[in-house]
Amino acid sequence: MSESQERLHHRHLEQAREQIIDLLTRQAVERELVSRSEGRAELSKHDVVAQLVARQQQAQLEQKLAQLHPADIAFILESLPQDAREAAWGLVRPERRGAVLLEINEAVLRALLGDMRPEEIAAVVRHLDSDDIAELLSELPEELSQGVLTRLDRDDQAEVRSVLSFPDGSVGSMMDLDFLSVREDASLEAVLRLLRRQKSLPPDVNQLIVVDRGGHLRGVLSLEQLLLQEPEREVREVMTADPTFFYTGDAVADAVTAFEKYDLISAPVVNLHKQVVGRIPVDAVVDAIKERAQSESLRQVGLSEEEDLFAPAMESAKNRWPWLALNLLTAFFASRVIGAFEDIIVQLVALAALMPIVASIGGNTGNQTVALVIRGLALNQLGPTQLRKMFSKEFVVATVNGALWGSVLGVATLALYHQWPLALVIAVAVMLNLWVAAAAGVLIPLTLQRFGRDPVMGSSVLLTAFTDSMGFFIFLALAAVFLV
Amino acid sequence: MSESQERLHHRHLEQAREQIIDLLTRQAVERELVSRSEGRAELSKHDVVAQLVARQQQAQLEQKLAQLHPADIAFILESLPQDAREAAWGLVRPERRGAVLLEINEAVLRALLGDMRPEEIAAVVRHLDSDDIAELLSELPEELSQGVLTRLDRDDQAEVRSVLSFPDGSVGSMMDLDFLSVREDASLEAVLRLLRRQKSLPPDVNQLIVVDRGGHLRGVLSLEQLLLQEPEREVREVMTADPTFFYTGDAVADAVTAFEKYDLISAPVVNLHKQVVGRIPVDAVVDAIKERAQSESLRQVGLSEEEDLFAPAMESAKNRWPWLALNLLTAFFASRVIGAFEDIIVQLVALAALMPIVASIGGNTGNQTVALVIRGLALNQLGPTQLRKMFSKEFVVATVNGALWGSVLGVATLALYHQWPLALVIAVAVMLNLWVAAAAGVLIPLTLQRFGRDPVMGSSVLLTAFTDSMGFFIFLALAAVFLV
Repeated sequence: MSESQERLHHRHLEQAREQIIDLLTRQAVERELVSRSEGRAELSKHDVVAQLVARQQQAQLEQKLAQLHPADIAFILESLPQDAREAAWGLVRPERRGAVLLEINEAVLRALLGDMRPEEIAAVVRHLDSDDIAELLSELPEELSQGVLTRLDRDDQAEVRSVLSFPDGSVGSMMDLDFLSVREDASLEAVLRLLRRQKSLPPDVNQLIVVDRGGHLRGVLSLEQLLLQEPEREVREVMTADPTFFYTGDAVADAVTAFEKYDLISAPVVNLHKQVVGRIPVDAVVDAIKERAQSESLRQVGLSEEEDLFAPAMESAKNRWPWLALNLLTAFFASRVIGAFEDIIVQLVALAALMPIVASIGGNTGNQTVALVIRGLALNQLGPTQLRKMFSKEFVVATVNGALWGSVLGVATLALYHQWPLALVIAVAVMLNLWVAAAAGVLIPLTLQRFGRDPVMGSSVLLTAFTDSMGFFIFLALAAVFLV
Repeated sequence: MSESQERLHHRHLEQAREQIIDLLTRQAVERELVSRSEGRAELSKHDVVAQLVARQQQAQLEQKLAQLHPADIAFILESLPQDAREAAWGLVRPERRGAVLLEINEAVLRALLGDMRPEEIAAVVRHLDSDDIAELLSELPEELSQGVLTRLDRDDQAEVRSVLSFPDGSVGSMMDLDFLSVREDASLEAVLRLLRRQKSLPPDVNQLIVVDRGGHLRGVLSLEQLLLQEPEREVREVMTADPTFFYTGDAVADAVTAFEKYDLISAPVVNLHKQVVGRIPVDAVVDAIKERAQSESLRQVGLSEEEDLFAPAMESAKNRWPWLALNLLTAFFASRVIGAFEDIIVQLVALAALMPIVASIGGNTGNQTVALVIRGLALNQLGPTQLRKMFSKEFVVATVNGALWGSVLGVATLALYHQWPLALVIAVAVMLNLWVAAAAGVLIPLTLQRFGRDPVMGSSVLLTAFTDSMGFFIFLALAAVFLV
């Protein structure tokens, strides 16, 4: 990102966005007027004026977009409805499109590139670094990304292929290939001379990587030390000899944790021979955290990150099918549990009205436990000892809350239906279902994790299915035994 | 954070943590043996040995902890159960405790400091920068934090008070007071000399702030430019004149967005007169993002961030009361909706078994819409135009899914109960409840936001309450009209 690109204060950005959306909307209206008039034999005066206005606005828009930072253009594109988005994309200068694509979310990226031919995409991304090209290609369909790849320069192709070969979620797939290294026996003076010969440093560089003759990591030299220390000293004297570093195979999640904990700005990445092959800049870490946080809240309800706010409705509907099918299946199962007790419900219809309360309170408290466990897993805080502690704590919490709210519900039931046994049954059922909810709330995410699944994805639907069915079963079975 | 602190690769950290937990557990066992023996008149040989072992392990532990980075100690403390945590905290050297507290989460922080007297806390935090002290104090109960404040040095007190005066969630409350400024008419040579006189720079510094005589922001000078440009040049020639900056009153969320978008490492903070008063370093931003993401998933189910994995059970139980009470209230309302149709259920008991399906599928799809809207709000993508687009899209999705899954459910009902009218009623009820869910899914988070509430907190429980009640009502009302 060039320093000279205009960065707008967020208040101004809001204004700029509104203006652009406004212009685009007006443009769309004018276009429609013009296209309507084209059918007619002669252009009315009004139509001519409309055309002129439309052209003028187009020029104005192009100019506005040219002044914005690529990230701001990406933001505007993301918040435009599909038709306006395509119009705006057409107005972004070709040489800036690559930088904009890097900042845009996956759904919009696919929508924009979906209609382009491989050679067009290759022309757009050619201006980017090879790791950035790899990042973009990894988000495209396999066939399209191969098509683009073969149309790149030979050198770029090799580098992009090497980045693409690292599995998703590994440090290798997120690293930056662009780094500056120096030798430990150089003097600071020599390093300073070397730097002055460069026209610019890679973005976010706050340290140089110190390597030996074979390219093995020896340490890092911060720009700070370079500036503060006497130029006569050698690199080895002032470098940090035991820097935090990562292997290409390390998980991105671990790198993120390390950056957060140790307040890093960048860190070297090495291969298995401890040769430096790249570095992680902090802005990649910031992006990784944000993306994960956003996708997590969507995954909890069974949506993929690809679900765009303005994606075509049919596509969105289909995206949600697997999840809905699962939900329908579990709800159907719960319904069969109730079905098994139809005789009892006919004898005491109050059961039908009361049973959803038992199910609902179980689902609610169970989901609270799930959220705590997922956070504990994410923060790596659940070893065997902690797990036992947590299990017994959740059990106590369920007991306290079950006793309290079971009694409240029992009293309310007594007031409504004037039946002591019914009040007792619902109180006991709430207690029992809260125990079920606590156990399931701990075990479901743990089990998903144990079997190598994402503990976030589906925890909530599985838990609710479980607490619903068990809630109905416990309440109706107790009623069958004690009330009828 | 000093560079010389040992930072462990995450694999080693796992080992270190396990060792420390292991040592603490063994120590606890030994301690118990010793304390049991104290009641007796004479110490057996075995007890003496046990005491010796315990003391030796204590020394070993202290040494291990002394070698760790404060963030690693914080991590270990967070993942220890309460008793072991207190034992470990006692072994952290007093002069390092402040740095550890800065890295620890709020719940554990309160647990650790809760029992300490104000003068003890003052002694611990005295080693920290005043903005860090303010950060810690803002997480303590008012009375305690005032007590600590009055026991600090006079200068510190004033600075801490000024930071504390900024409202929570504002840039002023998160900024770092520690920054280096230079004048625009200085030569780079002079700046370099100035730097060499410092022993170290503030952490994360990648740029110096350029100010005029009155302290007003003029630009920023990156260390990169300082290194690459000829020393004879003036600061004003090489500085970035229009840097991204923030006012103390700006929202932290906006600062986070700007850092993410523009890949910033640090940014100046100014007061209303555009005088520089501090800076935001990227590590504070990383912390802010992580904290927000973690608290969000908890808030969705009605838990506060203060809920610690190992908090005392009674406290946790109480934390969850308001939420449970709300849940019970809404579930009770849904139950009364069913109660109004008891006559019909008695006549056709299959309704009791089928009604939770209609409610459940509505809650599920509604929560998907809620998640999309919350993300849209967080990303600032929902202006009036986009809102209309999104509304109509969710309506189409609901129609497609309602038609499809309503039919599936209708067929299943027909197969089970062999009643055409019942099958039709459930199919139509699913369709209608999906419309309700789509509308509520968009409107509930928007309404919460409109009334100045956090759209995350409670969206999900309100939506489920709505789709449950409406699901029961729609299904049973249709049945009352067409089946009985």
